[in-house]
Amino acid sequence: MNARIFRSIIGLSVSCPFFFSCNKTTQTSPSETSKDSVAVTTDPLPSWNDREGKKAILTYVKEVTDPKSSSFITIPDRIATFDNDGTLWSEQPLYFQFFFALDRVKAMAPKHPEWKNKQPFKAVLEHNTEELMKQGEKGLVQLVMTTHAGNTTDEFDSIVTQWIDTAKHPIKKVKYTELVFQPMLELIQYLQANDFKTFIVSGGGIEFMRPWTEGVYGIPKDQVVGSSVKTQYDYNNGKPIIKRLAELDLNDDKEGKPMAIHRYIGRKPVFSAGNSDGDLQMFRWTDSNPLKNFKLYVHHTDSIREWAYDRPSHIGTFDKGWDEAKAKGWTVVDMKEEWNAIYPLEKK
Amino acid sequence: MNARIFRSIIGLSVSCPFFFSCNKTTQTSPSETSKDSVAVTTDPLPSWNDREGKKAILTYVKEVTDPKSSSFITIPDRIATFDNDGTLWSEQPLYFQFFFALDRVKAMAPKHPEWKNKQPFKAVLEHNTEELMKQGEKGLVQLVMTTHAGNTTDEFDSIVTQWIDTAKHPIKKVKYTELVFQPMLELIQYLQANDFKTFIVSGGGIEFMRPWTEGVYGIPKDQVVGSSVKTQYDYNNGKPIIKRLAELDLNDDKEGKPMAIHRYIGRKPVFSAGNSDGDLQMFRWTDSNPLKNFKLYVHHTDSIREWAYDRPSHIGTFDKGWDEAKAKGWTVVDMKEEWNAIYPLEKK
Repeated sequence: MNARIFRSIIGLSVSCPFFFSCNKTTQTSPSETSKDSVAVTTDPLPSWNDREGKKAILTYVKEVTDPKSSSFITIPDRIATFDNDGTLWSEQPLYFQFFFALDRVKAMAPKHPEWKNKQPFKAVLEHNTEELMKQGEKGLVQLVMTTHAGNTTDEFDSIVTQWIDTAKHPIKKVKYTELVFQPMLELIQYLQANDFKTFIVSGGGIEFMRPWTEGVYGIPKDQVVGSSVKTQYDYNNGKPIIKRLAELDLNDDKEGKPMAIHRYIGRKPVFSAGNSDGDLQMFRWTDSNPLKNFKLYVHHTDSIREWAYDRPSHIGTFDKGWDEAKAKGWTVVDMKEEWNAIYPLEKK
Repeated sequence: MNARIFRSIIGLSVSCPFFFSCNKTTQTSPSETSKDSVAVTTDPLPSWNDREGKKAILTYVKEVTDPKSSSFITIPDRIATFDNDGTLWSEQPLYFQFFFALDRVKAMAPKHPEWKNKQPFKAVLEHNTEELMKQGEKGLVQLVMTTHAGNTTDEFDSIVTQWIDTAKHPIKKVKYTELVFQPMLELIQYLQANDFKTFIVSGGGIEFMRPWTEGVYGIPKDQVVGSSVKTQYDYNNGKPIIKRLAELDLNDDKEGKPMAIHRYIGRKPVFSAGNSDGDLQMFRWTDSNPLKNFKLYVHHTDSIREWAYDRPSHIGTFDKGWDEAKAKGWTVVDMKEEWNAIYPLEKK
């Protein structure tokens, strides 16, 4: 268990000097944002302004789905992979899965009276950020493994489902699933309507995502790929269960993404979307597909409606990926300029 | 690397006292079999006789796809998992993947002149079964890893594709893909037509199957689950590749099957098909699904058209699974009695 492994599970970069308060940009709740967009029924991407990103997407899909085009792609090869944190939903001020871990500590505390005097749990229960940071990586790993393992897969599914149905974001004050990106939902649907098979390929936990991604994104469970822990099958008392062990199995970030794509999907994508350097290896993998392909970086530029961050960021660093995107002509979407709505609530 | 791991890759049971000749039953080539079946266009399973197995399948599918039924299953939960060796295609006298390994040794030999004097390769090149068996598991593992690893995923894909397109079964004298089971092809299509999502969950190598299973079974690559080796991502010279390492990652047999189903699919199947004790844990997993579910064992009873084997068998042992199937009322299909055609060639 090391920093890299830890980050792959809960996503907290150790370069974050604060903890709960390391986001330096301004946010507003979704309800405060303007509702100046009008959905046009014939437009598959109504939340996208008619700018570079939208034009590039429409042109690409039209071309590769046209049997007369030299760039035509047959349906089995229409594989699209989406990062999740920062690409399909927000990821500030911390990866949402880490808020889940903190909430789990609080929920589990009544059965662990010893935590009142035991770090790192004590710090979490006392909201003592300074003390928690002193616990370092070891303490944080302990938090994540304690809250993410030691139960069965069925139990963990229920826990995640209950949390995602009730927990609210500390700043936006809405459920986490309200913080998915409306333009990306439209993009997923548009690709699906054009016979693309859409996958999530995320550094987040696969079992943290699957309970809700099908309903929220319309992506089936078996098309969700993420980091995972090792498991153990048991058949005690004639009842089969799978236990979640406190040991990382797949670290689905950076170079782990192309390997996970190969493992789960078995062919190179022709369309990939991401938002950080953690997606760069996935983009290079997609870019190496001899079929015409598309790489889309979401650039977080909207400090009012969402958050603004890129090169120096404690989460979702967009630095090397940005340079390579510019050098190679990949599509970089400026959220502030190109999206007339960020969250679904703005469309209601 | 141990016997269990080894068997998961190449499937040779160490209880086989012979090697190339451990099958004790009689076989004929597909062309010698009778063609007395007449396909009825309205019958989704024309190669199945109107016996217990077929009736049970039709009744089950009709019931769980009827919205008025109390056993109705919504489409996302219609997950069907199929074992491959012995369930979708034959597996005698050795798992076909092991013939691939032997052929690879011969194909690679010109670049390895040292193999002429080095075991276990020498024994393979000299067709010396007795000597090969003396090499034991260590030698066999060496054979498999030498022929299955050390290349890139793209290279391995090409090698498998070329082999499957050209190699012929030593007894049946037809391509291996001609030895898939016509009734099971019909079953897959029937389930797909009823909005079941069909998966392969096999102890065979995932990368050995994916190059051809899509075309042969109509099951997409990302719905093929199998044993796998560890991989390594590399980006030398700006070209991303994934290398196949000589180390097992996933052993998709026995208790590995429910764990692989959970990892790849993320929900319990409602329909599972298999043929050996290696599928028992998958069946128990399916059986524990609160939704109405179906377990189908293919029983190899036809020594004329295919092979006959069950309890004492060097491959595809059907012993504990048979007992449990009888005790729990799972469906056991008698190939000889219930299938009027075994291979697609019989229908042409």
